[in-house]
Amino acid sequence: MPDANSSAGPGARLRALGLELPSAPKPLGNYVEASQAGSLLFISGTLPISKSKLTITGRLGDGITIEQGREAARLAAMNALAAVLEHVGDLDRIKKLAKLNIYLAATPQFTDHAAVADGASDLFAQIFRKERGHARMVSGVASLPKGTPVVVETIFELKGTV
Amino acid sequence: MPDANSSAGPGARLRALGLELPSAPKPLGNYVEASQAGSLLFISGTLPISKSKLTITGRLGDGITIEQGREAARLAAMNALAAVLEHVGDLDRIKKLAKLNIYLAATPQFTDHAAVADGASDLFAQIFRKERGHARMVSGVASLPKGTPVVVETIFELKGTV
Amino acid sequence: MPDANSSAGPGARLRALGLELPSAPKPLGNYVEASQAGSLLFISGTLPISKSKLTITGRLGDGITIEQGREAARLAAMNALAAVLEHVGDLDRIKKLAKLNIYLAATPQFTDHAAVADGASDLFAQIFRKERGHARMVSGVASLPKGTPVVVETIFELKGTV
Repeated sequence: MPDANSSAGPGARLRALGLELPSAPKPLGNYVEASQAGSLLFISGTLPISKSKLTITGRLGDGITIEQGREAARLAAMNALAAVLEHVGDLDRIKKLAKLNIYLAATPQFTDHAAVADGASDLFAQIFRKERGHARMVSGVASLPKGTPVVVETIFELKGTV
Repeated sequence: MPDANSSAGPGARLRALGLELPSAPKPLGNYVEASQAGSLLFISGTLPISKSKLTITGRLGDGITIEQGREAARLAAMNALAAVLEHVGDLDRIKKLAKLNIYLAATPQFTDHAAVADGASDLFAQIFRKERGHARMVSGVASLPKGTPVVVETIFELKGTV
Repeated sequence: MPDANSSAGPGARLRALGLELPSAPKPLGNYVEASQAGSLLFISGTLPISKSKLTITGRLGDGITIEQGREAARLAAMNALAAVLEHVGDLDRIKKLAKLNIYLAATPQFTDHAAVADGASDLFAQIFRKERGHARMVSGVASLPKGTPVVVETIFELKGTV
Protein backbone atom coordinates (compact mmCIF):
# COMPACT_ATOMS: atom_id res chain seq x y z
CA MET A 1 0.00 0.00 0.00
CA PRO A 2 1.43 3.40 -0.88
CA ASP A 3 2.40 5.52 2.10
CA ALA A 4 0.80 8.93 1.88
CA ASN A 5 3.60 10.24 4.10
CA SER A 6 6.49 8.96 2.01
CA SER A 7 9.07 11.17 0.36
CA ALA A 8 6.60 11.99 -2.40
CA GLY A 9 5.44 15.60 -2.71
CA PRO A 10 2.10 17.10 -1.70
CA GLY A 11 0.58 16.38 -5.12
CA ALA A 12 1.36 12.66 -4.83
CA ARG A 13 0.16 12.62 -1.22
CA LEU A 14 -3.14 14.18 -2.23
CA ARG A 15 -3.60 11.47 -4.87
CA ALA A 16 -2.50 8.70 -2.50
CA LEU A 17 -5.16 9.84 -0.03
CA GLY A 18 -7.76 9.52 -2.77
CA LEU A 19 -8.95 13.08 -2.22
CA GLU A 20 -10.73 14.82 -5.03
CA LEU A 21 -10.52 18.61 -4.84
CA PRO A 22 -13.57 20.74 -5.59
CA SER A 23 -13.48 23.05 -8.59
CA ALA A 24 -11.45 26.20 -7.98
CA PRO A 25 -13.37 28.82 -5.97
CA LYS A 26 -14.64 31.97 -7.67
CA PRO A 27 -14.14 35.44 -6.14
CA LEU A 28 -17.19 37.01 -4.47
CA GLY A 29 -16.02 40.48 -5.53
CA ASN A 30 -13.32 42.46 -7.31
CA TYR A 31 -10.28 40.42 -6.29
CA VAL A 32 -8.47 37.22 -7.27
CA GLU A 33 -8.16 33.88 -5.50
CA ALA A 34 -4.35 33.71 -5.58
CA SER A 35 -1.73 36.46 -5.48
CA GLN A 36 1.98 35.70 -5.63
CA ALA A 37 4.65 37.97 -4.15
CA GLY A 38 8.15 36.56 -4.42
CA SER A 39 8.06 33.06 -2.98
CA LEU A 40 4.83 33.65 -1.06
CA LEU A 41 1.43 32.72 -2.44
CA PHE A 42 -1.44 34.54 -0.72
CA ILE A 43 -4.77 32.74 -1.13
CA SER A 44 -8.02 34.62 -0.59
CA GLY A 45 -10.43 33.50 2.10
CA THR A 46 -12.09 30.25 1.04
CA LEU A 47 -15.49 28.96 2.15
CA PRO A 48 -16.98 25.47 2.59
CA ILE A 49 -18.21 25.26 -1.00
CA SER A 50 -19.04 22.09 -2.90
CA LYS A 51 -20.39 22.01 -6.46
CA SER A 52 -20.45 25.84 -6.38
CA LYS A 53 -22.75 25.89 -3.34
CA LEU A 54 -22.10 26.93 0.25
CA THR A 55 -22.84 23.73 2.20
CA ILE A 56 -23.68 25.30 5.56
CA THR A 57 -24.58 28.61 7.21
CA GLY A 58 -24.79 29.63 10.87
CA ARG A 59 -22.63 30.21 13.92
CA LEU A 60 -20.59 28.01 16.21
CA GLY A 61 -22.23 27.99 19.61
CA ASP A 62 -25.61 28.75 18.05
CA GLY A 63 -26.82 25.65 16.23
CA ILE A 64 -23.62 24.62 14.43
CA THR A 65 -21.89 21.77 16.24
CA ILE A 66 -18.14 21.35 16.60
CA GLU A 67 -18.24 18.34 14.27
CA GLN A 68 -20.15 20.33 11.63
CA GLY A 69 -17.66 23.14 12.04
CA ARG A 70 -14.71 20.76 11.61
CA GLU A 71 -16.20 19.37 8.42
CA ALA A 72 -16.82 22.90 7.12
CA ALA A 73 -13.23 23.86 7.94
CA ARG A 74 -11.97 20.79 6.09
CA LEU A 75 -14.04 21.62 3.01
CA ALA A 76 -12.90 25.27 3.09
CA ALA A 77 -9.30 23.95 3.23
CA MET A 78 -10.01 21.77 0.18
CA ASN A 79 -11.17 24.90 -1.63
CA ALA A 80 -7.91 26.62 -0.68
CA LEU A 81 -5.97 23.72 -2.18
CA ALA A 82 -8.11 23.96 -5.33
CA ALA A 83 -7.23 27.66 -5.60
CA VAL A 84 -3.53 26.83 -5.20
CA LEU A 85 -3.73 24.10 -7.81
CA GLU A 86 -5.41 26.40 -10.30
CA HIS A 87 -2.70 29.00 -9.77
CA VAL A 88 0.44 26.85 -9.80
CA GLY A 89 -0.73 23.86 -11.85
CA ASP A 90 0.89 21.26 -9.59
CA LEU A 91 0.85 21.04 -5.77
CA ASP A 92 4.41 19.72 -5.90
CA ARG A 93 5.48 23.30 -6.62
CA ILE A 94 4.45 24.13 -3.03
CA LYS A 95 7.14 23.92 -0.38
CA LYS A 96 4.86 24.33 2.61
CA LEU A 97 1.83 25.96 4.13
CA ALA A 98 3.44 28.88 5.95
CA LYS A 99 0.40 30.33 7.70
CA LEU A 100 -3.21 29.43 8.30
CA ASN A 101 -5.83 31.85 9.59
CA ILE A 102 -9.23 30.49 10.44
CA TYR A 103 -12.21 32.74 11.04
CA LEU A 104 -15.24 31.20 12.71
CA ALA A 105 -18.62 32.90 12.97
CA ALA A 106 -19.17 32.27 16.68
CA THR A 107 -21.02 33.44 19.73
CA PRO A 108 -19.28 35.41 22.50
CA GLN A 109 -19.56 32.29 24.72
CA PHE A 110 -17.87 29.87 22.28
CA THR A 111 -14.48 28.52 23.40
CA ASP A 112 -13.74 25.45 21.23
CA HIS A 113 -12.14 27.29 18.31
CA ALA A 114 -9.09 25.02 18.25
CA ALA A 115 -11.10 21.81 17.81
CA VAL A 116 -13.01 23.27 14.87
CA ALA A 117 -9.86 24.68 13.24
CA ASP A 118 -8.21 21.25 13.35
CA GLY A 119 -10.63 20.21 10.60
CA ALA A 120 -8.48 22.31 8.27
CA SER A 121 -5.13 21.73 10.00
CA ASP A 122 -5.50 17.94 9.95
CA LEU A 123 -5.98 18.00 6.17
CA PHE A 124 -3.04 20.34 5.58
CA ALA A 125 -0.83 18.24 7.87
CA GLN A 126 -1.65 15.14 5.80
CA ILE A 127 -0.79 16.90 2.55
CA PHE A 128 2.25 18.95 3.61
CA ARG A 129 3.57 16.67 6.40
CA LYS A 130 3.67 17.44 10.04
CA GLU A 131 7.36 18.37 10.17
CA ARG A 132 6.62 21.24 7.83
CA GLY A 133 3.77 22.28 10.12
CA HIS A 134 2.01 25.60 9.67
CA ALA A 135 1.62 28.51 12.08
CA ARG A 136 -2.02 29.20 12.91
CA MET A 137 -4.42 31.84 14.18
CA VAL A 138 -8.09 31.20 14.93
CA SER A 139 -10.67 33.78 15.94
CA GLY A 140 -14.42 33.81 16.49
CA VAL A 141 -15.98 36.73 14.61
CA ALA A 142 -19.51 38.18 14.51
CA SER A 143 -20.33 37.26 10.91
CA LEU A 144 -18.74 36.14 7.66
CA PRO A 145 -19.61 36.53 3.94
CA LYS A 146 -22.86 34.83 2.88
CA GLY A 147 -23.42 33.52 6.40
CA THR A 148 -20.68 30.87 6.24
CA PRO A 149 -19.58 29.58 9.67
CA VAL A 150 -15.94 29.20 8.53
CA VAL A 151 -13.45 30.95 6.29
CA VAL A 152 -9.92 29.60 5.75
CA GLU A 153 -7.13 32.04 4.80
CA THR A 154 -3.73 30.70 3.76
CA ILE A 155 -0.21 31.76 2.83
CA PHE A 156 1.90 29.14 1.05
CA GLU A 157 5.61 29.13 0.27
CA LEU A 158 6.59 28.17 -3.26
CA LYS A 159 9.64 26.11 -4.11
CA GLY A 160 12.67 27.63 -5.77
CA THR A 161 11.32 31.03 -6.67
CA VAL A 162 13.95 33.10 -4.93
CA MET B 1 -8.11 61.53 -23.15
CA PRO B 2 -5.44 59.81 -21.11
CA ASP B 3 -6.16 56.15 -20.36
CA ALA B 4 -5.85 55.44 -16.66
CA ASN B 5 -5.22 51.80 -17.50
CA SER B 6 -2.37 52.38 -19.93
CA SER B 7 1.14 51.08 -19.43
CA ALA B 8 1.79 53.88 -16.96
CA GLY B 9 2.48 52.94 -13.33
CA PRO B 10 0.17 53.25 -10.32
CA GLY B 11 1.40 56.78 -9.58
CA ALA B 12 0.45 57.99 -13.06
CA ARG B 13 -2.88 56.14 -12.88
CA LEU B 14 -3.72 57.79 -9.57
CA ARG B 15 -3.07 61.21 -11.13
CA ALA B 16 -4.96 60.33 -14.33
CA LEU B 17 -7.97 59.43 -12.18
CA GLY B 18 -7.79 62.86 -10.58
CA LEU B 19 -7.73 61.35 -7.09
CA GLU B 20 -6.29 63.37 -4.27
CA LEU B 21 -5.01 61.30 -1.38
CA PRO B 22 -5.70 62.35 2.20
CA SER B 23 -2.75 63.27 4.40
CA ALA B 24 -0.86 60.24 5.68
CA PRO B 25 -2.60 58.54 8.64
CA LYS B 26 -1.14 58.83 12.14
CA PRO B 27 -0.74 55.81 14.42
CA LEU B 28 -3.30 55.44 17.24
CA GLY B 29 -0.66 53.84 19.48
CA ASN B 30 2.96 52.71 19.75
CA TYR B 31 3.44 51.41 16.20
CA VAL B 32 4.20 52.74 12.72
CA GLU B 33 2.03 53.02 9.62
CA ALA B 34 4.42 51.15 7.30
CA SER B 35 6.91 48.36 7.97
CA GLN B 36 9.10 46.91 5.23
CA ALA B 37 10.48 43.36 5.31
CA GLY B 38 12.39 42.41 2.17
CA SER B 39 10.15 43.20 -0.78
CA LEU B 40 6.98 43.25 1.31
CA LEU B 41 5.52 46.43 2.73
CA PHE B 42 3.11 45.85 5.62
CA ILE B 43 0.71 48.74 6.16
CA SER B 44 -1.09 49.13 9.49
CA GLY B 45 -4.88 49.05 9.59
CA THR B 46 -6.24 52.27 8.11
CA LEU B 47 -9.60 53.91 8.91
CA PRO B 48 -11.99 56.09 6.91
CA ILE B 49 -10.33 59.34 7.92
CA SER B 50 -10.57 62.67 6.11
CA LYS B 51 -8.93 65.89 7.31
CA SER B 52 -7.75 63.99 10.42
CA LYS B 53 -11.31 63.02 11.38
CA LEU B 54 -13.08 59.69 11.35
CA THR B 55 -15.98 60.27 8.95
CA ILE B 56 -18.34 57.60 10.25
CA THR B 57 -18.97 55.27 13.21
CA GLY B 58 -21.32 52.32 13.67
CA ARG B 59 -21.92 48.79 12.47
CA LEU B 60 -22.98 47.21 9.20
CA GLY B 61 -26.40 45.70 9.69
CA ASP B 62 -27.19 48.19 12.46
CA GLY B 63 -27.71 51.62 10.93
CA ILE B 64 -24.78 51.71 8.49
CA THR B 65 -25.93 50.93 4.93
CA ILE B 66 -23.96 48.95 2.37
CA GLU B 67 -23.40 52.10 0.32
CA GLN B 68 -22.07 53.95 3.39
CA GLY B 69 -19.85 50.97 4.14
CA ARG B 70 -18.50 50.95 0.57
CA GLU B 71 -17.66 54.62 0.75
CA ALA B 72 -15.96 54.12 4.13
CA ALA B 73 -13.95 51.20 2.70
CA ARG B 74 -12.88 53.34 -0.25
CA LEU B 75 -11.73 56.15 2.04
CA ALA B 76 -9.87 53.71 4.30
CA ALA B 77 -8.14 52.40 1.14
CA MET B 78 -7.17 55.96 0.20
CA ASN B 79 -5.59 56.28 3.64
CA ALA B 80 -3.63 53.08 3.00
CA LEU B 81 -2.32 54.55 -0.26
CA ALA B 82 -1.38 57.74 1.61
CA ALA B 83 0.60 55.64 4.11
CA VAL B 84 2.36 53.84 1.24
CA LEU B 85 3.17 57.12 -0.49
CA GLU B 86 4.63 58.60 2.67
CA HIS B 87 6.83 55.54 3.11
CA VAL B 88 8.10 54.98 -0.45
CA GLY B 89 7.80 58.51 -1.89
CA ASP B 90 6.36 57.34 -5.23
CA LEU B 91 3.56 54.83 -5.89
CA ASP B 92 5.46 53.69 -9.00
CA ARG B 93 7.82 51.88 -6.63
CA ILE B 94 4.94 49.50 -5.83
CA LYS B 95 4.69 46.37 -7.94
CA LYS B 96 1.32 45.25 -6.67
CA LEU B 97 -1.12 44.98 -3.82
CA ALA B 98 -0.43 41.42 -2.65
CA LYS B 99 -3.08 41.06 0.04
CA LEU B 100 -6.07 42.98 1.32
CA ASN B 101 -7.82 42.26 4.62
CA ILE B 102 -10.99 44.11 5.40
CA TYR B 103 -12.53 44.14 8.84
CA LEU B 104 -16.12 45.31 9.14
CA ALA B 105 -17.86 46.05 12.42
CA ALA B 106 -21.00 44.06 11.73
CA THR B 107 -23.93 42.32 13.35
CA PRO B 108 -24.14 38.50 13.55
CA GLN B 109 -26.91 38.65 10.90
CA PHE B 110 -24.95 40.63 8.32
CA THR B 111 -24.06 38.75 5.11
CA ASP B 112 -23.10 41.40 2.49
CA HIS B 113 -19.44 41.71 3.44
CA ALA B 114 -18.24 41.29 -0.15
CA ALA B 115 -20.25 44.22 -1.51
CA VAL B 116 -18.89 46.54 1.18
CA ALA B 117 -15.32 45.35 0.70
CA ASP B 118 -15.49 46.10 -3.02
CA GLY B 119 -15.44 49.79 -2.09
CA ALA B 120 -11.74 49.24 -1.33
CA SER B 121 -11.05 46.59 -3.98
CA ASP B 122 -12.50 48.68 -6.80
CA LEU B 123 -10.14 51.54 -5.97
CA PHE B 124 -7.09 49.27 -5.71
CA ALA B 125 -8.02 47.55 -8.99
CA GLN B 126 -8.11 50.93 -10.74
CA ILE B 127 -4.71 51.91 -9.39
CA PHE B 128 -2.87 48.58 -9.64
CA ARG B 129 -4.75 47.04 -12.60
CA LYS B 130 -6.96 44.03 -12.53
CA GLU B 131 -4.36 41.61 -13.93
CA ARG B 132 -2.26 42.26 -10.85
CA GLY B 133 -5.33 41.59 -8.72
CA HIS B 134 -5.03 41.20 -4.97
CA ALA B 135 -6.01 38.28 -2.73
CA ARG B 136 -8.65 39.27 -0.18
CA MET B 137 -10.15 38.33 3.17
CA VAL B 138 -13.21 40.02 4.69
CA SER B 139 -14.67 39.40 8.13
CA GLY B 140 -17.38 40.96 10.27
CA VAL B 141 -16.08 41.64 13.75
CA ALA B 142 -17.70 42.83 16.97
CA SER B 143 -16.01 46.22 17.19
CA LEU B 144 -13.10 48.22 15.81
CA PRO B 145 -10.90 51.06 17.13
CA LYS B 146 -12.76 54.35 17.78
CA GLY B 147 -16.03 52.82 16.60
CA THR B 148 -15.08 52.82 12.90
CA PRO B 149 -17.24 50.49 10.75
CA VAL B 150 -14.28 49.56 8.50
CA VAL B 151 -10.55 48.97 8.77
CA VAL B 152 -8.42 48.17 5.71
CA GLU B 153 -5.18 46.19 6.18
CA THR B 154 -2.77 45.80 3.27
CA ILE B 155 0.44 44.08 2.21
CA PHE B 156 2.15 45.51 -0.88
CA GLU B 157 5.02 44.13 -2.95
CA LEU B 158 7.79 46.56 -3.82
CA LYS B 159 9.60 46.56 -7.14
CA GLY B 160 13.18 45.42 -7.44
CA THR B 161 14.11 45.13 -3.79
CA VAL B 162 15.26 41.51 -3.90
CA MET C 1 23.45 51.82 34.21
CA PRO C 2 23.17 49.80 31.02
CA ASP C 3 21.01 51.43 28.36
CA ALA C 4 18.41 48.99 27.07
CA ASN C 5 18.19 51.07 23.89
CA SER C 6 21.88 50.99 23.06
CA SER C 7 23.34 49.45 19.93
CA ALA C 8 22.98 46.00 21.47
CA GLY C 9 20.58 43.56 19.83
CA PRO C 10 17.13 42.50 21.00
CA GLY C 11 18.53 39.61 23.04
CA ALA C 12 20.78 41.94 25.03
CA ARG C 13 17.96 44.46 25.43
CA LEU C 14 15.67 41.75 26.81
CA ARG C 15 18.32 40.83 29.38
CA ALA C 16 19.06 44.49 30.20
CA LEU C 17 15.38 45.01 30.95
CA GLY C 18 15.51 42.08 33.37
CA LEU C 19 12.59 40.37 31.67
CA GLU C 20 12.19 36.66 32.08
CA LEU C 21 10.27 35.00 29.26
CA PRO C 22 7.67 32.33 30.04
CA SER C 23 8.29 28.82 28.76
CA ALA C 24 7.56 28.42 25.05
CA PRO C 25 3.83 28.10 24.30
CA LYS C 26 2.36 24.76 23.22
CA PRO C 27 -0.01 24.45 20.25
CA LEU C 28 -3.72 23.99 21.08
CA GLY C 29 -4.16 21.84 17.97
CA ASN C 30 -2.47 20.33 14.92
CA TYR C 31 -0.10 23.18 14.06
CA VAL C 32 3.26 24.55 15.17
CA GLU C 33 4.19 27.71 17.05
CA ALA C 34 6.69 29.00 14.48
CA SER C 35 6.85 28.61 10.72
CA GLN C 36 9.65 30.11 8.66
CA ALA C 37 9.29 31.08 4.99
CA GLY C 38 12.37 32.72 3.55
CA SER C 39 13.31 35.57 5.86
CA LEU C 40 9.86 35.75 7.47
CA LEU C 41 9.01 33.95 10.69
CA PHE C 42 5.28 33.47 11.21
CA ILE C 43 4.36 32.93 14.87
CA SER C 44 1.02 31.35 15.77
CA GLY C 45 -1.45 33.26 17.89
CA THR C 46 -0.19 33.46 21.47
CA LEU C 47 -2.30 33.83 24.61
CA PRO C 48 -1.66 35.41 28.02
CA ILE C 49 -0.25 32.22 29.53
CA SER C 50 1.98 31.97 32.59
CA LYS C 51 3.24 28.70 34.07
CA SER C 52 1.15 26.86 31.44
CA LYS C 53 -2.07 28.50 32.60
CA LEU C 54 -4.28 31.10 30.94
CA THR C 55 -4.20 33.99 33.42
CA ILE C 56 -7.50 35.64 32.47
CA THR C 57 -10.74 35.05 30.57
CA GLY C 58 -13.53 37.39 29.49
CA ARG C 59 -14.23 40.29 27.18
CA LEU C 60 -13.14 43.89 26.97
CA GLY C 61 -16.14 46.10 27.67
CA ASP C 62 -17.72 43.34 29.74
CA GLY C 63 -15.83 43.00 33.01
CA ILE C 64 -12.24 43.12 31.70
CA THR C 65 -10.72 46.58 32.22
CA ILE C 66 -8.36 48.33 29.82
CA GLU C 67 -5.53 47.90 32.31
CA GLN C 68 -6.22 44.16 32.62
CA GLY C 69 -6.34 43.95 28.84
CA ARG C 70 -3.01 45.76 28.50
CA GLU C 71 -1.38 43.38 30.96
CA ALA C 72 -2.86 40.38 29.10
CA ALA C 73 -1.58 41.78 25.78
CA ARG C 74 1.88 42.21 27.29
CA LEU C 75 1.92 38.64 28.59
CA ALA C 76 0.71 37.29 25.23
CA ALA C 77 3.55 39.25 23.60
CA MET C 78 6.02 37.63 26.03
CA ASN C 79 4.71 34.25 24.90
CA ALA C 80 5.30 35.26 21.27
CA LEU C 81 8.92 36.13 22.14
CA ALA C 82 9.26 32.77 23.90
CA ALA C 83 8.05 31.02 20.74
CA VAL C 84 10.57 32.98 18.65
CA LEU C 85 13.38 32.17 21.06
CA GLU C 86 12.57 28.48 20.96
CA HIS C 87 12.61 28.53 17.17
CA VAL C 88 15.72 30.61 16.47
CA GLY C 89 17.73 30.05 19.67
CA ASP C 90 18.78 33.70 20.02
CA LEU C 91 16.65 36.87 19.71
CA ASP C 92 19.65 38.59 18.12
CA ARG C 93 18.86 36.60 14.97
CA ILE C 94 15.69 38.72 14.64
CA LYS C 95 15.98 41.86 12.52
CA LYS C 96 12.60 43.28 13.43
CA LEU C 97 8.97 42.69 14.23
CA ALA C 98 7.40 43.26 10.82
CA LYS C 99 3.73 42.95 11.71
CA LEU C 100 1.60 42.67 14.81
CA ASN C 101 -2.07 41.63 14.78
CA ILE C 102 -3.97 41.83 18.02
CA TYR C 103 -7.35 40.21 18.49
CA LEU C 104 -9.42 41.32 21.46
CA ALA C 105 -12.57 39.56 22.61
CA ALA C 106 -14.73 42.65 22.94
CA THR C 107 -18.29 43.92 23.02
CA PRO C 108 -19.83 45.76 20.05
CA GLN C 109 -19.66 48.98 22.11
CA PHE C 110 -15.94 48.78 22.94
CA THR C 111 -13.75 51.48 21.34
CA ASP C 112 -10.44 51.50 23.27
CA HIS C 113 -8.69 48.78 21.23
CA ALA C 114 -5.57 50.87 20.68
CA ALA C 115 -4.90 51.43 24.40
CA VAL C 116 -5.15 47.70 25.11
CA ALA C 117 -2.96 46.76 22.15
CA ASP C 118 -0.20 49.08 23.36
CA GLY C 119 0.39 46.58 26.15
CA ALA C 120 2.01 44.40 23.48
CA SER C 121 3.41 47.19 21.30
CA ASP C 122 5.17 48.89 24.20
CA LEU C 123 7.02 45.66 25.01
CA PHE C 124 8.01 45.02 21.40
CA ALA C 125 9.15 48.63 20.99
CA GLN C 126 11.44 48.24 24.01
CA ILE C 127 12.96 45.05 22.62
CA PHE C 128 13.18 45.91 18.91
CA ARG C 129 13.57 49.68 19.17
CA LYS C 130 11.11 52.28 18.05
CA GLU C 131 12.89 53.16 14.79
CA ARG C 132 12.29 49.59 13.65
CA GLY C 133 8.63 49.99 14.61
CA HIS C 134 6.06 47.40 13.61
CA ALA C 135 2.90 47.78 11.53
CA ARG C 136 -0.23 46.88 13.52
CA MET C 137 -3.83 45.80 13.17
CA VAL C 138 -6.24 45.49 16.12
CA SER C 139 -9.78 44.16 16.00
CA GLY C 140 -12.47 43.33 18.53
CA VAL C 141 -13.88 39.87 17.88
CA ALA C 142 -16.76 37.89 19.34
CA SER C 143 -14.72 35.17 21.06
CA LEU C 144 -11.25 33.64 21.15
CA PRO C 145 -9.86 30.17 21.98
CA LYS C 146 -10.39 29.08 25.60
CA GLY C 147 -12.10 32.36 26.43
CA THR C 148 -8.91 34.44 26.38
CA PRO C 149 -9.53 38.20 26.05
CA VAL C 150 -6.40 38.70 23.90
CA VAL C 151 -4.45 36.87 21.22
CA VAL C 152 -1.23 38.28 19.76
CA GLU C 153 -0.19 37.25 16.23
CA THR C 154 3.23 38.21 14.90
CA ILE C 155 5.42 38.12 11.80
CA PHE C 156 9.13 38.68 12.38
CA GLU C 157 11.91 39.30 9.88
CA LEU C 158 15.08 37.29 10.34
CA LYS C 159 18.57 38.64 9.75
CA GLY C 160 20.63 37.54 6.77
CA THR C 161 18.56 34.64 5.50
CA VAL C 162 18.12 35.88 1.92
